[in-house]
Amino acid sequence: MAAALAIAERGVGQTGNNPSVGCVIVQDDIIVGRGWTQYGGRPHAEAMALAQAGSKAAGATIYVTLEPCAHPSERGPACAHLVYDARPARVVGAVTDPDPRTAGQGFARLREAGIEVETGVMASEARVQLAGFFSRLERSRPFVTLKMATSLDGQIAMANGQSRWITGDFARAHAHVERARCDAILVGAGTVRIDAPRLDVRLAGLEHRSPRKIMLGSGDAPQGWDVLRSLEELGSLACNTLLVEGGAMTASAFLRAGLVDRLLLYRAPILIGAGTACLGDIGLDNLDVAHGRWQISLSRRLGKDSIEVYDALI
Amino acid sequence: MAAALAIAERGVGQTGNNPSVGCVIVQDDIIVGRGWTQYGGRPHAEAMALAQAGSKAAGATIYVTLEPCAHPSERGPACAHLVYDARPARVVGAVTDPDPRTAGQGFARLREAGIEVETGVMASEARVQLAGFFSRLERSRPFVTLKMATSLDGQIAMANGQSRWITGDFARAHAHVERARCDAILVGAGTVRIDAPRLDVRLAGLEHRSPRKIMLGSGDAPQGWDVLRSLEELGSLACNTLLVEGGAMTASAFLRAGLVDRLLLYRAPILIGAGTACLGDIGLDNLDVAHGRWQISLSRRLGKDSIEVYDALI
Repeated sequence: MAAALAIAERGVGQTGNNPSVGCVIVQDDIIVGRGWTQYGGRPHAEAMALAQAGSKAAGATIYVTLEPCAHPSERGPACAHLVYDARPARVVGAVTDPDPRTAGQGFARLREAGIEVETGVMASEARVQLAGFFSRLERSRPFVTLKMATSLDGQIAMANGQSRWITGDFARAHAHVERARCDAILVGAGTVRIDAPRLDVRLAGLEHRSPRKIMLGSGDAPQGWDVLRSLEELGSLACNTLLVEGGAMTASAFLRAGLVDRLLLYRAPILIGAGTACLGDIGLDNLDVAHGRWQISLSRRLGKDSIEVYDALI
Repeated sequence: MAAALAIAERGVGQTGNNPSVGCVIVQDDIIVGRGWTQYGGRPHAEAMALAQAGSKAAGATIYVTLEPCAHPSERGPACAHLVYDARPARVVGAVTDPDPRTAGQGFARLREAGIEVETGVMASEARVQLAGFFSRLERSRPFVTLKMATSLDGQIAMANGQSRWITGDFARAHAHVERARCDAILVGAGTVRIDAPRLDVRLAGLEHRSPRKIMLGSGDAPQGWDVLRSLEELGSLACNTLLVEGGAMTASAFLRAGLVDRLLLYRAPILIGAGTACLGDIGLDNLDVAHGRWQISLSRRLGKDSIEVYDALI
């Protein structure tokens, strides 16, 4: 399952509305097939792995990070059927598909067909990797990551607006990898107007992974951008993972609405003083309730800078 | 020398104007005497170690973190004379005394007396430990540590002033150890008026290590406090190490004047938003010059909070 999760990483941010799934087929301790959700969402991981395994899938064990889909689609056959046809001895799954059209039926059909089915293996890891897909299905909105790049004193720019550069090359490269792993990036209309950010992935070999660009607010968006008029319409984006890159008003609006699931905090070892704060009003009335909301999950140095990742607890 | 430096830690913040020095005397691979500068500055480390070693100091090696003083004092004999009288075979020193009344004469006199003298051993470590003493002697001002306790977004309080509590018990305990290691603590007159901070060391067994309290600015200081009218008079404090604990105006004034040597940054995993920023105007005109001024020397977790220490590079 760990190998299946690792393979699934390849598709993260590249599968549109579909979850990025990984599948590994093992026959007599030898991997005979590997698959991951392909660009745009098809073929599915199971279809790819089964095509690779061919007749060796018969009697094999199939590891898959998400329950095989059981519902028909005009884009391809349901994976539960493909798996059934391949006659494996055993299917090991991490998590059940939250899509109501499958929702346990994929596993159930395989069990009914006499295939041994085990589920819940590395479920928490799979849920983290599939957080965006679960968020869209269960909460009707994308999983939201808020990125901030600040000085030690929490400023994102000088008072005169100068903000290039606060963090250095390593931090920027890291942030571009985060971009490549998201389905869409959002910035506020003010940031579009003032900074005209490109928001693309500028890492050699990953340029094609630049995500969809979204402007929050009113006004003319640059060509090729989508526009989100208000946060109430967040669900209409129909994307799994969203990276919010600023500015302070947009970041504060997401926090105020309780819409941030993950915080990426890049910090440079500089002090700015009276500049532009990373946040404005986030709707906090009492210091007591600020506690217990964020838990650190990563802390490391990136050259002279550092990154910390915090996950929302509530 | 590492043992001598470790022993010297006991006196840090407790020796008044005197440096906290450590001394270890070794005869035939056995430690026969240990000493460190005592409360208030006397006896000196060498005097204590030599008294302990007695006749065993003859022919021994004496390790001392700072050159033995060569100038007479009404508070006790010069250590260079005491060492000479003990007839060691060898003296190993870390750094030369910056006090112009000694400034190399301590080592020179011992060499003239036929004692083998080696210097510069673990000099950089000793210089860090004695940074306050060197600062007062070489720059005529204390070594200044600025402490800030902030949210992830750099706020030290809510907009309404509420600031209890941002950081938790572990961070506060750590900050109290830092207090115990300083000669004096300074806060601005505004902080005195609004918060009436006690600024003492509230750690079991270390209460007697509470440092001298200083208010920056005008107005009535609490009983027992000293007053510093302006930063121009910083040298008049005649102390080696100063801990600046706020508020934002005072912190900014020290930074604007280039008077901060070390930054203690405690951070809680909370977001505050539009509150009270940890800093105001620090006199930064251009983002480019903000870089290269601070180097991280410590980063660790303190319960849910974290601490980072930055040393000034320029």
